Amino acid sequence: MTHTAVIAGVGPGLGESLARRFVEEGCSVGLFARSSAYLDDLAADLGERALAVPTDVSDQAQVARGFAEVREAFGPVDVLVNHASAAPWRGTLDISGEAFREALAVGAEGALYCSQEAVRDMLDGEGGTVVFTGATTSRRGREGAIGFSAAKFAARGMAESMARELGPEGIHVAHVVIDGQILTPGAREQGDRRTETFLDPDEIAREYWHLIEQDRSTWTLELDLRPHVESF
Amino acid sequence: MTHTAVIAGVGPGLGESLARRFVEEGCSVGLFARSSAYLDDLAADLGERALAVPTDVSDQAQVARGFAEVREAFGPVDVLVNHASAAPWRGTLDISGEAFREALAVGAEGALYCSQEAVRDMLDGEGGTVVFTGATTSRRGREGAIGFSAAKFAARGMAESMARELGPEGIHVAHVVIDGQILTPGAREQGDRRTETFLDPDEIAREYWHLIEQDRSTWTLELDLRPHVESF
Amino acid sequence: MTHTAVIAGVGPGLGESLARRFVEEGCSVGLFARSSAYLDDLAADLGERALAVPTDVSDQAQVARGFAEVREAFGPVDVLVNHASAAPWRGTLDISGEAFREALAVGAEGALYCSQEAVRDMLDGEGGTVVFTGATTSRRGREGAIGFSAAKFAARGMAESMARELGPEGIHVAHVVIDGQILTPGAREQGDRRTETFLDPDEIAREYWHLIEQDRSTWTLELDLRPHVESF
Amino acid sequence: MTHTAVIAGVGPGLGESLARRFVEEGCSVGLFARSSAYLDDLAADLGERALAVPTDVSDQAQVARGFAEVREAFGPVDVLVNHASAAPWRGTLDISGEAFREALAVGAEGALYCSQEAVRDMLDGEGGTVVFTGATTSRRGREGAIGFSAAKFAARGMAESMARELGPEGIHVAHVVIDGQILTPGAREQGDRRTETFLDPDEIAREYWHLIEQDRSTWTLELDLRPHVESF
Repeated sequence: MTHTAVIAGVGPGLGESLARRFVEEGCSVGLFARSSAYLDDLAADLGERALAVPTDVSDQAQVARGFAEVREAFGPVDVLVNHASAAPWRGTLDISGEAFREALAVGAEGALYCSQEAVRDMLDGEGGTVVFTGATTSRRGREGAIGFSAAKFAARGMAESMARELGPEGIHVAHVVIDGQILTPGAREQGDRRTETFLDPDEIAREYWHLIEQDRSTWTLELDLRPHVESF
Repeated sequence: MTHTAVIAGVGPGLGESLARRFVEEGCSVGLFARSSAYLDDLAADLGERALAVPTDVSDQAQVARGFAEVREAFGPVDVLVNHASAAPWRGTLDISGEAFREALAVGAEGALYCSQEAVRDMLDGEGGTVVFTGATTSRRGREGAIGFSAAKFAARGMAESMARELGPEGIHVAHVVIDGQILTPGAREQGDRRTETFLDPDEIAREYWHLIEQDRSTWTLELDLRPHVESF
Repeated sequence: MTHTAVIAGVGPGLGESLARRFVEEGCSVGLFARSSAYLDDLAADLGERALAVPTDVSDQAQVARGFAEVREAFGPVDVLVNHASAAPWRGTLDISGEAFREALAVGAEGALYCSQEAVRDMLDGEGGTVVFTGATTSRRGREGAIGFSAAKFAARGMAESMARELGPEGIHVAHVVIDGQILTPGAREQGDRRTETFLDPDEIAREYWHLIEQDRSTWTLELDLRPHVESF
Repeated sequence: MTHTAVIAGVGPGLGESLARRFVEEGCSVGLFARSSAYLDDLAADLGERALAVPTDVSDQAQVARGFAEVREAFGPVDVLVNHASAAPWRGTLDISGEAFREALAVGAEGALYCSQEAVRDMLDGEGGTVVFTGATTSRRGREGAIGFSAAKFAARGMAESMARELGPEGIHVAHVVIDGQILTPGAREQGDRRTETFLDPDEIAREYWHLIEQDRSTWTLELDLRPHVESF
């Protein structure tokens, strides 16, 4: 079975690894991010099964247009990764109302708009998979990061709500708790010792792919991932 | 010690019980809600230590004005209850973007604006207490209620984040998980048998007051409350 | 209403504070611990409403005899605190089979034997309260403390199971998560500054008493307590 | 890399599927269970890379002998599945002390004895994987099943404790929450419709194998699995 995936929130870290893995597995992939510069390079590198779709996920109309573009290019969407995040690392008094609202707009509202588009395709078709990218902070509110805590908790609540609602309809909703720092291209070059403490984004992408391929008699709602040396 | 409290989101159920209890304990109380009709009656009933402050908590400027009114009447705020909620009971595809945004605006953004106002007073003074009203859905995403799930999870993440940040500053942040239906004035009149299955709002208010009075060597972050017959 | 309580696992820390508080509130109290020396002094100090009952809670027959003594002195039991613990701070390879078995025997099996005795009295009477003393480790398995982790998790599972089974029968089962170090008599004398970082056992006892007095329309299953400066 | 695995608690359901999968993946497998009859048939069916080792895991000496047999046949152990369970479905007053102690002896003490043997091999070698089989009841104490609740919670606490202690040593400890009924050979023959509501044990085995193969930059502590139609 071939898939059409949307990755909402693609950057040079995990987003790129996901895109690369999905294309390698034979998927067509729509790449959503706010600015087009990086997206165009990545899409060119990935070839004809990748499409750059500059999209602000917090804008419902842009999301609708983005999905329309992907459908026109590749057909209905059956894999969605809600990966976008915009959360300042600020405490209760330090965060502005605007920054807090943006954290929720990107992390929660954007996930809703994308999910609504994707789930419609999945219900018309043969089901599909929606994966939310979470963090340690999705399960433990973090001091000094109230916007990030609010947005990550909200997305986890959405994932649980959707999993219960849509599982019986053949839609697998999963939430991945990434517990630790993801290896950046820069860190990778600092050598073996340092990298022990990071998550390898290609390995995270392998885990997302595993979720997509799970048999529906054994679906996972929440997958936590961390480096073997992580304190937690 | 006398307290000045703000109850954000006062209606005829638990909000009223909280207001009544706080006044009985000697607090002055600012009552926030969108419409003034009910607030005025309640404030009149409670007497001179209660102030009706019609306020849409999702509007940062209105919140600032509301706190200014309370401070002018009663002095700095040292107790805040984040109690407002506006969450439609709708599933992934049924909820409109507008209704979802409003759920987050009232449940999460409003809680931030109120908390920022109150915490400033508390840091200038001798600390204080912030209580969030949560629900079963704060800990278990509910199918068919994606906006409520997102908003309630977000508020819980905020409470945890604030508790860790502000506890050492002498501010007690707590989150109450109300697990079950709250007795309404109507249900109360239906007699003893039915009421066994409900939470008594006056008893919930007693529990909130207990949190406010906890010694700071034994602060609770999360308090779950349910009727003894509740299945959970 | 007067109560007859059993505190299983009384020592000079929290156990003593619980006993003292319960007697002050008008309860009769049976004090269980392995060795009689400390118990006798405490019972003498507390007066005629306290009874020293040397009991190894991991021995089912001793527990039966202990409850028989309490019943004979004070009548049926309606409050039980499962407070005994015997858990070495050892890791996976360091712990002996014997020490691990003892951790479970005292922390889980002893709690069962005591609960069975107390619950029978409660079902014959007008209900009652069973409180389990938990710790941070009840919710987060701790490295280097596998026996303590096993025993504390087991007790929490028991508390949840009992709460669901027995709540509708009028028996309130609660689990207290004590997150931090409890102030010892020695530490108390080291002065104000240090004590900020500890839980005051008299305040913890006040919280247990609050659980016992909760209205059954608002029962708490799990109460976490920590000093305001605690990192968590 | 070839593995030597011990599956502690093999029966005709998931235990057999695990054994079969592990052998297919090239592992040598020691099969532990109390009675030898079923084990012998399974081992004969699986061929020379499977060894029947009749073992009561709650007996520390038998566990030591069992591991010695496996090591002699296949070399040091680097995969362990703690899968044994002996928990009667009984409530607080209905369970006998003996049945409760056995639930802990098999589910927790047996897991310790097996883990100690296996972890020693892993520390001497190049690490390894320990998987605990959990259930819905591992995270939610179940009414009417106090022994099962205690044992399953205890094992989860052990898994968390061991994961934190042993992860940095290169040992991956994971806990699988199986949420639902596992398809039995009998149920499989009842046809397609019914089987939708069960977990396929071969698919669960695939998930265990996935945990064993995870890269150590992305290890999972807890994996929940359920059928897509499961209410949870």
